[in-house]
Amino acid sequence: MVAIGKPRGTRDFTPDEMRKRMATDREMRAVFERYGYREIATPTIENMNLFTMKSGKEIIEETYAFEDKSKRKLALRPELTAPAMRFYMEKLRMSPKPLKIYYFGNCFRYDRPQKGRYREFWQMGCELIGTDRPEAIAELIALAYHVLKETGLKDINLRIGHLDLLNRQVDGILSLFPPAGSAKSENKDKKDEIFRLIDKKDYDGVKNEFIASGVTKEKTTEFMDFLQSSNIQDVKKYSEESGLDQELKRYEEVISLLKEFGVNTIETAMEIARGLDYYKGIVFEIDAPSLGAEKQICGGGEYSLLPLLGGDNTPTAGFALGFDRIVLALEKEGYNFPPSKKPVYLHPIGDKMRKEAVSLARKLRGRGVLLDMDLMGRSPQKSLQYANRIGAKSVIIMGPDEWVRGMVTIKNMETGEQKEVKVEKLHKFL
Amino acid sequence: MVAIGKPRGTRDFTPDEMRKRMATDREMRAVFERYGYREIATPTIENMNLFTMKSGKEIIEETYAFEDKSKRKLALRPELTAPAMRFYMEKLRMSPKPLKIYYFGNCFRYDRPQKGRYREFWQMGCELIGTDRPEAIAELIALAYHVLKETGLKDINLRIGHLDLLNRQVDGILSLFPPAGSAKSENKDKKDEIFRLIDKKDYDGVKNEFIASGVTKEKTTEFMDFLQSSNIQDVKKYSEESGLDQELKRYEEVISLLKEFGVNTIETAMEIARGLDYYKGIVFEIDAPSLGAEKQICGGGEYSLLPLLGGDNTPTAGFALGFDRIVLALEKEGYNFPPSKKPVYLHPIGDKMRKEAVSLARKLRGRGVLLDMDLMGRSPQKSLQYANRIGAKSVIIMGPDEWVRGMVTIKNMETGEQKEVKVEKLHKFL
Repeated sequence: MVAIGKPRGTRDFTPDEMRKRMATDREMRAVFERYGYREIATPTIENMNLFTMKSGKEIIEETYAFEDKSKRKLALRPELTAPAMRFYMEKLRMSPKPLKIYYFGNCFRYDRPQKGRYREFWQMGCELIGTDRPEAIAELIALAYHVLKETGLKDINLRIGHLDLLNRQVDGILSLFPPAGSAKSENKDKKDEIFRLIDKKDYDGVKNEFIASGVTKEKTTEFMDFLQSSNIQDVKKYSEESGLDQELKRYEEVISLLKEFGVNTIETAMEIARGLDYYKGIVFEIDAPSLGAEKQICGGGEYSLLPLLGGDNTPTAGFALGFDRIVLALEKEGYNFPPSKKPVYLHPIGDKMRKEAVSLARKLRGRGVLLDMDLMGRSPQKSLQYANRIGAKSVIIMGPDEWVRGMVTIKNMETGEQKEVKVEKLHKFL
Repeated sequence: MVAIGKPRGTRDFTPDEMRKRMATDREMRAVFERYGYREIATPTIENMNLFTMKSGKEIIEETYAFEDKSKRKLALRPELTAPAMRFYMEKLRMSPKPLKIYYFGNCFRYDRPQKGRYREFWQMGCELIGTDRPEAIAELIALAYHVLKETGLKDINLRIGHLDLLNRQVDGILSLFPPAGSAKSENKDKKDEIFRLIDKKDYDGVKNEFIASGVTKEKTTEFMDFLQSSNIQDVKKYSEESGLDQELKRYEEVISLLKEFGVNTIETAMEIARGLDYYKGIVFEIDAPSLGAEKQICGGGEYSLLPLLGGDNTPTAGFALGFDRIVLALEKEGYNFPPSKKPVYLHPIGDKMRKEAVSLARKLRGRGVLLDMDLMGRSPQKSLQYANRIGAKSVIIMGPDEWVRGMVTIKNMETGEQKEVKVEKLHKFL
């Protein structure tokens, strides 16, 4: 006797949980399709070097890597953008641009499990390839927002940042106060550490890092203010000397177009650093405050991965939605998921009626009726109990005497009402 | 510059392939639901011992096994029945019986890739827990058959075998002609080898194995005839002295009930050995002859796994459908998959109309219109080319002069016809 459990940090889903997940899945897909996106899929396992070529350190540390029997280094995919780009390079390059693709898949991270953080988790996401015009980026962000709204989520916060602006600020400070050794690589390490701290929202950590580098208190405070500017005016004020006027203008235009797309509650958020090294330009995140600490349900933005895969500089942007957390947030908000369809239950009385019952079941299912039947040789009373437990809306009782007269009895399980009906008119009552 | 491919034996799916897969997926799910089955899901990774406890040798050899960073032995699931049973033991045990569950998931086998055999492949399957009455087993087999029929498959062959009858025959012969050493374990090894050969349909191998064991030519021929009996009369003739009268009667009853379920073309097939050690009793397979060598698209039957997981002897049966091969077979048969929905394409003329276009896109999508729009700042001519390439059914052209008058132009992409319509009546034309 062995009792074997599931691996730590993984989950099974009951029929009730799957009902909620599938309903959410359907709503989300429908919105992607309405925006002209078409579904693709990539393998669950990838060559490890797809993820090591340029990912955040943490992603690499948390990736399930293993060797197959030919000693090839494989990985359970930790995210879906690099695989989508690999697929694009292999097979979708010649598609008309812009190319809009979406996907729904499981990802894996070897992480400490907690509510809303699992070792296997699901993401629905998309990539927009071939355009970086403001209306394109605005449409992408609007899509993320509307997908979430269409699932039924009420309380979400969209925050939009800009990595070029953030980079310029950090570079500016580090060039004024270069680290002791001042080698270029040290500067890079310092910057990586600052970005990591920003990504973790560890603002005290950022301050300490600056102070340790000899940055003045004044400059540090100014940077922290920049980081927390929540409207476009503040961002512009702090970025006056950045030399990124074009980028600022584009950023402002995207935000303005988003309003036309029906997205009204937008915060600017310079502290969005994203966990992946290949992001650049406009980036965004969406939170569901009902989730508490692990509240981020969407992250995305512009990135550059194609050159690393041997491709050109075709613009790319995309986002990923945390499917598991979205379902959790809907539950927290008390969302009414569509109920499961109630079956009709068929109970033949006595063994002689069994063949007739099978044949009737076939006909009714052929007409699309969701039908369950006694498969245990139960008494009518026990069958009614079972029908009740599985939530049947009605029970058809097939007695031999009625059957000879071409009749069956239908019992309505909600009202308890019972009546005889003609077999050939039965489907009208179901 | 690195060019990174996908791992050997895995696949990417283009939007067109996904369209076919998702359409097939929908049809299949609908039938499971109509038979009263409800969906569950289990993790992609499992503890390795879930599969080593009692599986065929080959499955274990072909399983992707790896250690996580805590040295736990994990596996990419090679099949979905053992995980479903583990889940049942952990959480679904108290559900009313019979319990009907289905699932759709990816499985992995480290196998030589070829057409119809992939290292990552998809299965839709189900388990029926709590009854082994003839009508229950018949309903299960009918479900497999009807799921395949509803996908649109025309040419399929259902074959039904019986492992108890097969076992009894092999045991009978081996007890008459015990292997040289005659130790019990040798007998078991011999039997395993014979089952392996039967499962591989290597009938010459079976003969040679018997001859090598000293089985007479006459007995060998008789066994081969039994193995290839294709109707119930032959099976009964060869099993007269098996002492399995009850099982024979039940087997016959299942086949007879299947006809009531609308399954008319049934072959008996004593050579169904199944690749997994935990099968017993009635087993079945469905082939799609159009697929050639790798034609099996369904396998299932009765099995006993719960006692190995610390459970009792509750009857269990189920089957798995090879999703990838089903889609392949549909393609081979020339099935007309539902076409993808054609989008409406929106082209604003000039930058001034861009905001209006965004706002109009929002409204139309809000009404459920599948809409795509120019995100490249293209000329009308280029936009029409793109709209054509993505299969748009119509293009809305927003010119500033018309817009002032509350009008837009719609171009029907099939007929080429063009007309002006009022913006507020636009949705009626789409």
